[in-house]
Amino acid sequence: MTRTALKSSGVADLAHAAREAAHALAKTDAARRQFTLDRVAGSLRAQADAILAENAADVAAARAAGIAGAMLDRLQLDRERLDGMARAVEEIAAMPEVVGRVDARWQRPNGLEVTRVRIPLGVIAMIYESRPNVTTDAAALCLKTANAVILRGGSESFRSNQALGRVLAAALETSGLPPRAVQVMPTAERAALYELLACERDIDLVIPRGGEGLIRAVVEHSRIPILKHDRGVCHVYVHADADPDQALAICENAKVQRPGVCNAAETFLIDRAIAASFAPRLCLRMAELGVEVRGDEATRALGGAAVRAASEADWDAEYLAKIVAVRVVDDLAAAVEHIERHGSNHTEAIVTRDAGAAERFAREVGSSTVLVNASTRFADGGELGLGAEIGISTSKLHAYGPMGAEGLTTTKFVVRGDGHIRG
Amino acid sequence: MTRTALKSSGVADLAHAAREAAHALAKTDAARRQFTLDRVAGSLRAQADAILAENAADVAAARAAGIAGAMLDRLQLDRERLDGMARAVEEIAAMPEVVGRVDARWQRPNGLEVTRVRIPLGVIAMIYESRPNVTTDAAALCLKTANAVILRGGSESFRSNQALGRVLAAALETSGLPPRAVQVMPTAERAALYELLACERDIDLVIPRGGEGLIRAVVEHSRIPILKHDRGVCHVYVHADADPDQALAICENAKVQRPGVCNAAETFLIDRAIAASFAPRLCLRMAELGVEVRGDEATRALGGAAVRAASEADWDAEYLAKIVAVRVVDDLAAAVEHIERHGSNHTEAIVTRDAGAAERFAREVGSSTVLVNASTRFADGGELGLGAEIGISTSKLHAYGPMGAEGLTTTKFVVRGDGHIRG
Repeated sequence: MTRTALKSSGVADLAHAAREAAHALAKTDAARRQFTLDRVAGSLRAQADAILAENAADVAAARAAGIAGAMLDRLQLDRERLDGMARAVEEIAAMPEVVGRVDARWQRPNGLEVTRVRIPLGVIAMIYESRPNVTTDAAALCLKTANAVILRGGSESFRSNQALGRVLAAALETSGLPPRAVQVMPTAERAALYELLACERDIDLVIPRGGEGLIRAVVEHSRIPILKHDRGVCHVYVHADADPDQALAICENAKVQRPGVCNAAETFLIDRAIAASFAPRLCLRMAELGVEVRGDEATRALGGAAVRAASEADWDAEYLAKIVAVRVVDDLAAAVEHIERHGSNHTEAIVTRDAGAAERFAREVGSSTVLVNASTRFADGGELGLGAEIGISTSKLHAYGPMGAEGLTTTKFVVRGDGHIRG
Repeated sequence: MTRTALKSSGVADLAHAAREAAHALAKTDAARRQFTLDRVAGSLRAQADAILAENAADVAAARAAGIAGAMLDRLQLDRERLDGMARAVEEIAAMPEVVGRVDARWQRPNGLEVTRVRIPLGVIAMIYESRPNVTTDAAALCLKTANAVILRGGSESFRSNQALGRVLAAALETSGLPPRAVQVMPTAERAALYELLACERDIDLVIPRGGEGLIRAVVEHSRIPILKHDRGVCHVYVHADADPDQALAICENAKVQRPGVCNAAETFLIDRAIAASFAPRLCLRMAELGVEVRGDEATRALGGAAVRAASEADWDAEYLAKIVAVRVVDDLAAAVEHIERHGSNHTEAIVTRDAGAAERFAREVGSSTVLVNASTRFADGGELGLGAEIGISTSKLHAYGPMGAEGLTTTKFVVRGDGHIRG
């Protein structure tokens, strides 16, 4: 059905089938959706051999195409990773129900009772690259929130995703949910993607996850609203009244615990009042950790010969590597101003023992996650307690920051009267 | 400053100035913003003569251009309307503060304290047509929520809007808020509008309000997220167990109390079980009220000779006039299915004494406002208690349904630790 080759009208049919499935799905109860997810988890384990065989074919093709290193590693599944995917689905199944939740309730003077009730968004299109676990994570989060989903992974994981799609389809069928509620695109062609992005009547939201090229292509071609994050240029501001040991530990963790991810720090801002004592220690520690420091003049004067000169471009750079930009700033206001100018609305941290400074930083910095005395690496749906994360949004509309199940819902007004008419 | 003619780079400068003003505005406290709004209200009254003189020039030009009737009426101000605008600003000033509100707070097992705090969206561009009151309403709602705003009204109200812009600018200056926080576009040229809609780095949200042509032009040219409503094809479903008198009163109110607005009903769905007794009464009442009825076959058989035959297009029509489509449906499921197919996600009502049917309709209909035993005309920010309304959104992202101050904000995560690093 969805796994045959697409005719020219195939993509529009797929989107329309998703809309119909979304209508049906919105009427299902939570128990049936949870049952379905538990079946998905069970099948991922029971059908491991078949899934791993398809994945091995993807991996072989990728190797033959010269793909290696981290990208090949992201593509590759084994029994342990498959079990991790099954556990993630089970965790999503066990999360508290969001759909149907009454977020607010009040009564009007005329007696009308107004409630705001959480409902699914409808149809989500998920556009992503090599990791096959996104297929099951996204499908599970969408089913949990009664959204239909169209999954379009990369060509390199095509066979893996088709195999996972069969597991998902079988679970939907067994549990009596609409079979088109989860559809894996039967082609990885760009032309089909662009057709999908034009189906604005049948798709409510597009979530691209991947490299800059993929995100740019989606933004340029989509007529449908998009939730995406652009860059993570995250800052740690070491305030005049920081505990130096704590500041050093947080800077180290934010930069090197996993330098290649979006919530790793890219710039340290050091308050001038603490710079003379702190900057040398920080630069030395970075050198020990193999991190290249690019500093402004003040940092270079304090940090020693290993500190390279930062150019203007360094303040805007998302290195995703063991490189850090360091700047001495006059005060908290200057730190906030630097972040306003160079930040990406992702994540910033302040280290300070001064409660007033902490509150001012938390109030004035408009980024989606602001941390006080904690590493930027906590800007993550799982770490913040949202459960599974479908993405991190750095644009302010709808969802801002790590986005879990609630971000896949909206609220409607349900209003109860007793024959009320307007005068 | 903003009232001189625009050079080619003028629009980008305007948007960039708005971004800078938004940064400053986000740091102001509620009291100063409230003070500013009270000054705006005072000046609208104190400077009534000057504003009315500019408005009279607009009205004269509109008359000369052949504009008449409702459109001329919407454009025209007098002392009473100006006082109404001032009162609306005072009411917005007095509304509870949304910015800074902590919407949720929880603690992680590792001790991290997570909060979600309401913050402004940043920079809003408001694109609208002839009513000058939108200028002060939108400016007041944006200032209330610490958003900078760019106001672009229609050419027919250009001089009125410039005069209102001077009042707003003076109030900002007197109270020490950034003067570029509210900017009235100094030109009504389409080319400048399109330039504005390309400033995606400096503008966070575009809200178009006006006719279909305006909205289509904004949608086609905007690179910035948009909140809009397309159509209001609102339904009243008269359930088998409706109180017939109540149903008749609600149908009448929903259709004729103000037929030209988006929350007026366009289609009545009558349950087959009640149709034989109810449809004749309904059709007669509509005839008495001068409403043209376009019915399906069952309605025509019951409603008498005055009922015209509905075509397929009638189920999708937004008449905004004294015309109504009427259809007999088999049951509640058929009513929901009709709404899924033909509705516009705006507003639907059920009339019933059966609590189970009411809850099922409220759960299964995904429109932004669902009413039980009340007229569709209550789908309005003021009527629902949101205070002033900046628009009604029929797309599900960010805001869905009537949208007031809260819709002009988003939430950020503020996370407090004690030296927390990730292991």
